[in-house]
Amino acid sequence: MKKIQKVVLSSRPDGVLNPNNFQLVESDFPSVGEGEFLIKNRYLSLDAGFRQWMNEGASDNYLSAMPLGEAVQSIVLGEVVESRHSDYPVGAHVVGRTAWETYSIADGSDLMTIIDVENGVSAEHHLSVLGPSGMTAYFGLTDIGAAKAGDTVVVSAAAGGVGSLVGQMAKILGCRTIGISSSDKKCQWLSEELQYDQVINYKSAPGLGQSLKVLAPDGVDVYFDNVGGEMLDTVLQNLALKARIVLCGAISQYDVDSHSGVRNMWELITKRARAEGFMFSDYVDDYEEAAKVISQWVADGKLNAPVSVTDGISTTAAAFCDMLTGKNLGKSLVKLC
Amino acid sequence: MKKIQKVVLSSRPDGVLNPNNFQLVESDFPSVGEGEFLIKNRYLSLDAGFRQWMNEGASDNYLSAMPLGEAVQSIVLGEVVESRHSDYPVGAHVVGRTAWETYSIADGSDLMTIIDVENGVSAEHHLSVLGPSGMTAYFGLTDIGAAKAGDTVVVSAAAGGVGSLVGQMAKILGCRTIGISSSDKKCQWLSEELQYDQVINYKSAPGLGQSLKVLAPDGVDVYFDNVGGEMLDTVLQNLALKARIVLCGAISQYDVDSHSGVRNMWELITKRARAEGFMFSDYVDDYEEAAKVISQWVADGKLNAPVSVTDGISTTAAAFCDMLTGKNLGKSLVKLC
Repeated sequence: MKKIQKVVLSSRPDGVLNPNNFQLVESDFPSVGEGEFLIKNRYLSLDAGFRQWMNEGASDNYLSAMPLGEAVQSIVLGEVVESRHSDYPVGAHVVGRTAWETYSIADGSDLMTIIDVENGVSAEHHLSVLGPSGMTAYFGLTDIGAAKAGDTVVVSAAAGGVGSLVGQMAKILGCRTIGISSSDKKCQWLSEELQYDQVINYKSAPGLGQSLKVLAPDGVDVYFDNVGGEMLDTVLQNLALKARIVLCGAISQYDVDSHSGVRNMWELITKRARAEGFMFSDYVDDYEEAAKVISQWVADGKLNAPVSVTDGISTTAAAFCDMLTGKNLGKSLVKLC
Repeated sequence: MKKIQKVVLSSRPDGVLNPNNFQLVESDFPSVGEGEFLIKNRYLSLDAGFRQWMNEGASDNYLSAMPLGEAVQSIVLGEVVESRHSDYPVGAHVVGRTAWETYSIADGSDLMTIIDVENGVSAEHHLSVLGPSGMTAYFGLTDIGAAKAGDTVVVSAAAGGVGSLVGQMAKILGCRTIGISSSDKKCQWLSEELQYDQVINYKSAPGLGQSLKVLAPDGVDVYFDNVGGEMLDTVLQNLALKARIVLCGAISQYDVDSHSGVRNMWELITKRARAEGFMFSDYVDDYEEAAKVISQWVADGKLNAPVSVTDGISTTAAAFCDMLTGKNLGKSLVKLC
């Protein structure tokens, strides 16, 4: 009998997550219950935020801590191959939150949306620029960040799945963009491929704080924060009046041992600034309109959708850990079939 | 020749501020230049936020670090006794930012506004409920906090000059109010005099976090933060969806040694919550309208304006330090004449 392959969380990370915290296992095909459907997954989307829910007791308002021994929760793209749900017929392509597995059972909840694969948009685009990462970048920048022409927009993890889109979108909106990344190679890529106006390798002299003082002497209007912790603290010391901090992720903080407190909240008072968190899923009613805008940018050649793709479910754990340490350029995906 | 008395910052606080950091000195009367006027100060307003600018290098967007040997900056209320400025005639009463001194020279900048003392409003009211503290409470709660009927509003330093007004105003708006304070005595006062629905002595068992879980099981909608640091961190773990954190002050953080980082910023993401700073002076165009609303609340007996008044400029330094450690009930003022 044919088996499903899945990557389970086999142990809690003790500090830094590593591939040994996961295990590739096989299980029987599940039976499809009334109101359910079976998805053959084609791509897994690797999103740093899920790291948080791998910690013990990480339950919060959004998701619960992932149980040990179960497939790791993830956004996926796949095709319905068996269905007992009239809204999700066999042959439909969907994006939703299931898990790192070759086949998933779903019931239409967990952000499950049908996508149109007949319109020339690739699956990779559906998981990057037109998927959760694209929506995160778009609504974070335009709604939470209220970015407008002339603003100085700083993006951390600028070469990541979301950051690589935020910088380009900000540029399209007429902002001045400064990308923060962790290597000269990535900084070069940000400048050349993503047209960032300025780049900062925060690991090199003179360091982030001093670089921001030079590159943003009038202060940062919008900080799109994917990193949190110490980096957020440093940017807080370089805000413009009425600055907006888009709290999107906190990749520096998911390894429990590395928790570092933010000491400069006072800056938010004297700068009358705002730090606000959000989830792309809050904007589900506005996806369609955003997708039109984003698709036009792509069609006009203004917006690239860079992806880093590895092949096969066995690459998933290492690819996820590599992404957390910034080895990817653009959106990290695993291609299953 | 008659002298002016002033309290100068004589040394930088080494950790906790104490009265020995100040000195009462005398100086000659200044001459009034063209475009200036002389104010005989009647009251000094003690506001915790000024503590921040007593630190070395505390310059920020709003004020600069106070120079050693000069009178300590402060909001004052006084009467113009000599004038070479047509907008501020002799006999006018003003509130503005000058310093801890018996007479001040001013030029109309630094938030200087003329107040009406003919309308039966006491000087103490002009420095509390209708002054900077009242405006801070009102705009922080209604604009930044967007408080509405049914919200659970938590106020730290609830017995302080701003906090004592926020709780009452929130109650008037139909919110459920929870006041945080540092002693059972103050908590009793919050309940009895300010009609807080619930009070928490954060120094007593079971502690703030556990108390919030019990008293605000559905989470905190608005947190009016006068304290920052560890207390802010604890409240962050108890937010409702779409919570608003009004960043008004950070009294726990002004002593440099006590800086404590905020580790739970991630909560702002999953709760889609917002932390926003402000200064009452941003709302100068709306003072008049706010004053009408507040005056009506006072006239209707819905809003008390509790004050703690000490007598004479020699009491200023000790009264300010006492306020920072929470010895006051309501707005702290020094009466000069």
